[in-house]
Amino acid sequence: MWVDEKTGDYLNIQYKAKEKLFSKQSEFQKVEVYDCEFYGKMLFNEDLVMVSEKDEFVYHDMITHVPMFTHPDPKNVLVIGGGDGGTAREVLRHSSVEHCTMVEIDGVVVDACKEFIPQTSKDLSHPKLTLLIDDGVKFVREAKESGSRFDVIIVDSSEPIGPSTPLFGLEFYQDIYSILNEDGIVVSQGESPYYHQEMQVKLMSILSETFPKTNIYNYANLTYPGGFWSFTYASKSLCPLNDFKSDRLNNSNLDFEYYNEEIHRASFAIPNFQKKMLCKFIKR
Amino acid sequence: MWVDEKTGDYLNIQYKAKEKLFSKQSEFQKVEVYDCEFYGKMLFNEDLVMVSEKDEFVYHDMITHVPMFTHPDPKNVLVIGGGDGGTAREVLRHSSVEHCTMVEIDGVVVDACKEFIPQTSKDLSHPKLTLLIDDGVKFVREAKESGSRFDVIIVDSSEPIGPSTPLFGLEFYQDIYSILNEDGIVVSQGESPYYHQEMQVKLMSILSETFPKTNIYNYANLTYPGGFWSFTYASKSLCPLNDFKSDRLNNSNLDFEYYNEEIHRASFAIPNFQKKMLCKFIKR
Repeated sequence: MWVDEKTGDYLNIQYKAKEKLFSKQSEFQKVEVYDCEFYGKMLFNEDLVMVSEKDEFVYHDMITHVPMFTHPDPKNVLVIGGGDGGTAREVLRHSSVEHCTMVEIDGVVVDACKEFIPQTSKDLSHPKLTLLIDDGVKFVREAKESGSRFDVIIVDSSEPIGPSTPLFGLEFYQDIYSILNEDGIVVSQGESPYYHQEMQVKLMSILSETFPKTNIYNYANLTYPGGFWSFTYASKSLCPLNDFKSDRLNNSNLDFEYYNEEIHRASFAIPNFQKKMLCKFIKR
Repeated sequence: MWVDEKTGDYLNIQYKAKEKLFSKQSEFQKVEVYDCEFYGKMLFNEDLVMVSEKDEFVYHDMITHVPMFTHPDPKNVLVIGGGDGGTAREVLRHSSVEHCTMVEIDGVVVDACKEFIPQTSKDLSHPKLTLLIDDGVKFVREAKESGSRFDVIIVDSSEPIGPSTPLFGLEFYQDIYSILNEDGIVVSQGESPYYHQEMQVKLMSILSETFPKTNIYNYANLTYPGGFWSFTYASKSLCPLNDFKSDRLNNSNLDFEYYNEEIHRASFAIPNFQKKMLCKFIKR
């Protein structure tokens, strides 16, 4: 059995599956888990690859540890989305973290991953984690009103279709700004510099309108189309290069499959075509 | 019409084609050119993507300019393979180059690209270029006997199946060593760190056995499976980081779509899983 992932009308990537483990139409989207050859368990939302066991370490290392090792002492962390649990798992490895709140809109994704992908979901019952099945946009708006503050916020969203659409909007990032501490950082899933150029421009434009420090960084996993994808970075005060705490990383005793000191710095080196597209929105 | 590219028995990438422009079984392999949606003209050898107009700039920038801006004054350059012409095109942009020799084993590939992919093949009649349709392994052996010497050698090969197999062997690299000048550099197409780990280990092991300076660097294009691929680097004396001539790059007036100073340095930052696999073969 081959599972299809289409990009536009010009590309179709097929993964060979041994078995369909889960399939349900949630309130928001079609959620499916397959057991695939080579890649292990794979989660698809709306026929798009979210996570595979084979390469999830790349995505989760890079969305989490870049902001976590730039901030001097991240204690209170918010994850929006990230229903598979991999981002929360990586956040909770940092000994500085006192509390992590995760707000995932779709409980069906969480349930499917809890049952079929323990590799990513294994820490979803961690004592330092509060897991809310709720709308991240609403959560952030209410957090602003209640005066909550976070050190690091990670927007681990899927594509800007369906439930993730408002996570790519100006109002959302204005609210994010309000609930970050003075040295706070927000990192967001930033799509592909080859396939989603308009979306990268839109997201970076919103961030640079809202934050004094903005940047974009790249990583390379296996199972997103084209392999080469981006995360956006924004902060009230911290630069991911000048303020990078490489000593803290090297003394952390944490072991990563992808992330290291050179990869942290190198990920901010962007190719010329991407630089031309985004340079006016990058503020170091 | 969808054109399939299989990786192992677990992945099938399909490109939507408007038209098949060329198809011929050469002495060595099946050679095809399609006009595809989004990617433009694409060359397939043995059903594997070699080049697309959309992203060939990434591959050709990175295989060419990394060694060319590490060497202080590359005058005599040898390209083995590279039948589409893109690597020779990039070599010939360097004003220091007095002569470039290109040795492609399969004349059918050259003819197909000359007729259907002028974007890469446009400089194959350049006055500084000698294009030989010949076996690169034999050429290198004979060049050793005749005492020819090169500053930079680029092994722009396809997968280690069919005609490219001997280009991944020890004898070939021993001969390459013999025909390089004292500050000579050889860069080779190094496969994917995710999908071809055995091949990366084998190639890096051969290089570190033969050369005093060896390294590996990564780049990210669109149309190779997984997107994230490598080039190997070896030299008798030059380190691609310490000896990198960034001034010469910045004063060159050459404009690149992918390559720049930060990308040059960043490409040598390798993720931990690749470092673990290859660190004993990297000599800086």
